[in-house]
Amino acid sequence: MTALDQVLSRIDADLDNSLERLFAFLRIPSISTDPAHAGDCRAAAAHLAADLRSLGIEATLSETAGHPVVLGHSGGGDKGRVLFYGHYDVQPVDPLDLWATPPFEPRIATLPDGRKAIVARGACDDKGQVMTFVEACRAYVAVTGKLPLPITLLIEGEEECGSKSLPAWIEANRGSLAANLALVCDTGMWDPKTPAITTALRGLLYEEVEITAADRDLHSGLFGGPARNPIRVLTKILGGLHDDDGRITIPGFYDGITDPPAEVLAGWRSLDLTPENFLKPVGLSEPAGERGRALIEQLFSRPACDINGIWGGYTGAGSKTVIPSKAFAKVSFRLVAGQDPDTIRQAFRAYVRAKLPTDCSARFEDHTGAPAVAVPWDLPQLAAARTALTAEWGRDALLVGSGASIPIVADFKRLIGMDTLLIGFGLDDDRIHSPNEKYDLVSFHRGIRSWARILHALAE
Amino acid sequence: MTALDQVLSRIDADLDNSLERLFAFLRIPSISTDPAHAGDCRAAAAHLAADLRSLGIEATLSETAGHPVVLGHSGGGDKGRVLFYGHYDVQPVDPLDLWATPPFEPRIATLPDGRKAIVARGACDDKGQVMTFVEACRAYVAVTGKLPLPITLLIEGEEECGSKSLPAWIEANRGSLAANLALVCDTGMWDPKTPAITTALRGLLYEEVEITAADRDLHSGLFGGPARNPIRVLTKILGGLHDDDGRITIPGFYDGITDPPAEVLAGWRSLDLTPENFLKPVGLSEPAGERGRALIEQLFSRPACDINGIWGGYTGAGSKTVIPSKAFAKVSFRLVAGQDPDTIRQAFRAYVRAKLPTDCSARFEDHTGAPAVAVPWDLPQLAAARTALTAEWGRDALLVGSGASIPIVADFKRLIGMDTLLIGFGLDDDRIHSPNEKYDLVSFHRGIRSWARILHALAE
Repeated sequence: MTALDQVLSRIDADLDNSLERLFAFLRIPSISTDPAHAGDCRAAAAHLAADLRSLGIEATLSETAGHPVVLGHSGGGDKGRVLFYGHYDVQPVDPLDLWATPPFEPRIATLPDGRKAIVARGACDDKGQVMTFVEACRAYVAVTGKLPLPITLLIEGEEECGSKSLPAWIEANRGSLAANLALVCDTGMWDPKTPAITTALRGLLYEEVEITAADRDLHSGLFGGPARNPIRVLTKILGGLHDDDGRITIPGFYDGITDPPAEVLAGWRSLDLTPENFLKPVGLSEPAGERGRALIEQLFSRPACDINGIWGGYTGAGSKTVIPSKAFAKVSFRLVAGQDPDTIRQAFRAYVRAKLPTDCSARFEDHTGAPAVAVPWDLPQLAAARTALTAEWGRDALLVGSGASIPIVADFKRLIGMDTLLIGFGLDDDRIHSPNEKYDLVSFHRGIRSWARILHALAE
Repeated sequence: MTALDQVLSRIDADLDNSLERLFAFLRIPSISTDPAHAGDCRAAAAHLAADLRSLGIEATLSETAGHPVVLGHSGGGDKGRVLFYGHYDVQPVDPLDLWATPPFEPRIATLPDGRKAIVARGACDDKGQVMTFVEACRAYVAVTGKLPLPITLLIEGEEECGSKSLPAWIEANRGSLAANLALVCDTGMWDPKTPAITTALRGLLYEEVEITAADRDLHSGLFGGPARNPIRVLTKILGGLHDDDGRITIPGFYDGITDPPAEVLAGWRSLDLTPENFLKPVGLSEPAGERGRALIEQLFSRPACDINGIWGGYTGAGSKTVIPSKAFAKVSFRLVAGQDPDTIRQAFRAYVRAKLPTDCSARFEDHTGAPAVAVPWDLPQLAAARTALTAEWGRDALLVGSGASIPIVADFKRLIGMDTLLIGFGLDDDRIHSPNEKYDLVSFHRGIRSWARILHALAE
């Protein structure tokens, strides 16, 4: 029996205890956005740090401007160190009356199709996922007396309220965070049987634009015709952001973008992410992105522009014949590797300004900007982790993209120069952020086993 | 001394009494939009009806679904009957603390430039203007024992809250309203020395459009690209409503429109309604309407389209990465003679529907529609009234258009077949609808004299 086999056996045998430890963690209502729960957040952090110390990991609470970070360091060794990231905070629980049982009283439920699941706020996001990694470490320590490779853990407490304190904290603590690779457990499987590694995350640039024409609101009867209407100007400019092929018309917007390897693209296209599966459930039928790109490319590897909000003039009931002084919009861009947020921001602003007619001015507000992140397709640890996941689940682990942004991953790359593997065991029906959040018992159990295999593979 | 001269002398001699009667009318707080003032509205109507009866006019309160109409009929005679329209209701007075003196305690104030003015809510709009006509009638009766021609008066009480009950009331009472010509005193002078007759009023068509894409709000990270964004669809459609020459692109929109006579156009172009005078005070410099049309044409005789309101998605502070399910806009058209509101409405809806991409639907709400009104340039009474005004003010009376709509005038034409002369003595600085509303003493005095001259001319 190899050491890995012994570790996996130990995990199987200890599952009830692993669950009990997860339940203890879940019972702490660490809702980070609610100041009334600040004490609970600190308690959850302390609970986790104590648990890590029981594994021989030197773990402390590191203060931030907000809730503390749990920072853990295992002993050295000559293997490449990995940094594991997760978060101990959870989402609020309202509406409370939609929960079948109290959100901080975890239990095992049997789903209608027979699956067993852990039900509680944080069961999946992210306490359950964090504990898959911690329990894998525990099994290693129990069986071999030590971890298979040096590990740093960074478990933050503000992910659910924007991770506001984290970038400054990382900047201040980059020396303690040095590692060869980051591992994040906050994503999902492709489906209940197919594991996945998220290798590409789109970046985000979010701008607010305000167009001003006259210096006051005007009556459209007395002024309509000769008076410049800022809503008309705004619709003309924003209505021109896409051409008839769905491509964004800002000069230089697509510069620097490359396609994923043909093998990866072919893999994506063979997946069941079809309009029927992805769009029909929300009442749509046809991909609205760039013509000639498969839906999954539009989502994983192509940039996009959305108007997230627009307002101006009279928006109440009935009619008001006003020509407003100002009109506003919130416009965001999902970026892919090769696109720099600052460059795109300047290009967007220049595009708007170039289209302003006489008597109009534009003011911009920068809401956020984060570059896309892409794991190099030829990263050796990517192949190792993929093989390990495939061995555990009996199915090829998929390399997928994500339309959404996870800013921490960009920070790891930018500030520490580390690549990140995003591996998680959540499922689409986990109801994270909603009442009756759950985490499949299989996700938890095989998640622990998956990490044991991945740590083993990375230590080779 | 002619009869007219005697009437004019009587007006001059009786001015203090005329003012006292106006003040009594102004003291009644007939705010039509506020249910708490319903009794005051009725009191104002009763007060006016009693005053008309003192002139030998058979005046009654005629009930409507809202506040009563004051309907007065003078005796017959073989001259062509005229119908005078005004309103006894006034705007609300808030913010009350911006009034220098209580709004319903009328007084004579001296303006910084020495002009004397009546200050009170309704001083101009429309009690002061109505009383110019009533006092002219009173002087005729006092001097000659009768009115110079048969007169019907229709003084309504809901003009400031949309005249909702009036169209149905007119339809039901059209038999009592038969006349050769309507006179309306609710408009202004060109400037303090130059009288004007408004001969063209633009019509109004007001539509609300709602675009729906997905059946719920979506996350722009998870869906951005493949998911149809209704704000993007809306901006594309509305942004295309005007071409680069400022012309409206809806097929058939300009069908049936003719230009005013060259002489009228030349007159307009010689006026001082310049970008410097008209646009600069509101922070604009260049007419934004159809290229090649003078500002005054864009305002008086050309149709226009404005987006009066737009909204959709997230409009609060900060950022939210949402692709909303719906987007909305309020779009209105100022119409000119030759354009039918229903035809334009259908053309607008067809235009929007034709541009909808897959997976989008549009819903429309019809807020209002009123055709434009134009007095025939060769109407004999127009020439007569113009000569009378010119005689009183010592300056050529201008024939002007108005960008705004006055629905009653369209109703008079549509339901009774009457043309309307809009003659009023308001000034741009009268602050109607605002605190410290005023009416120049000269407007009131010479307004009365103007009506005496006009009635004399129409009776010739």
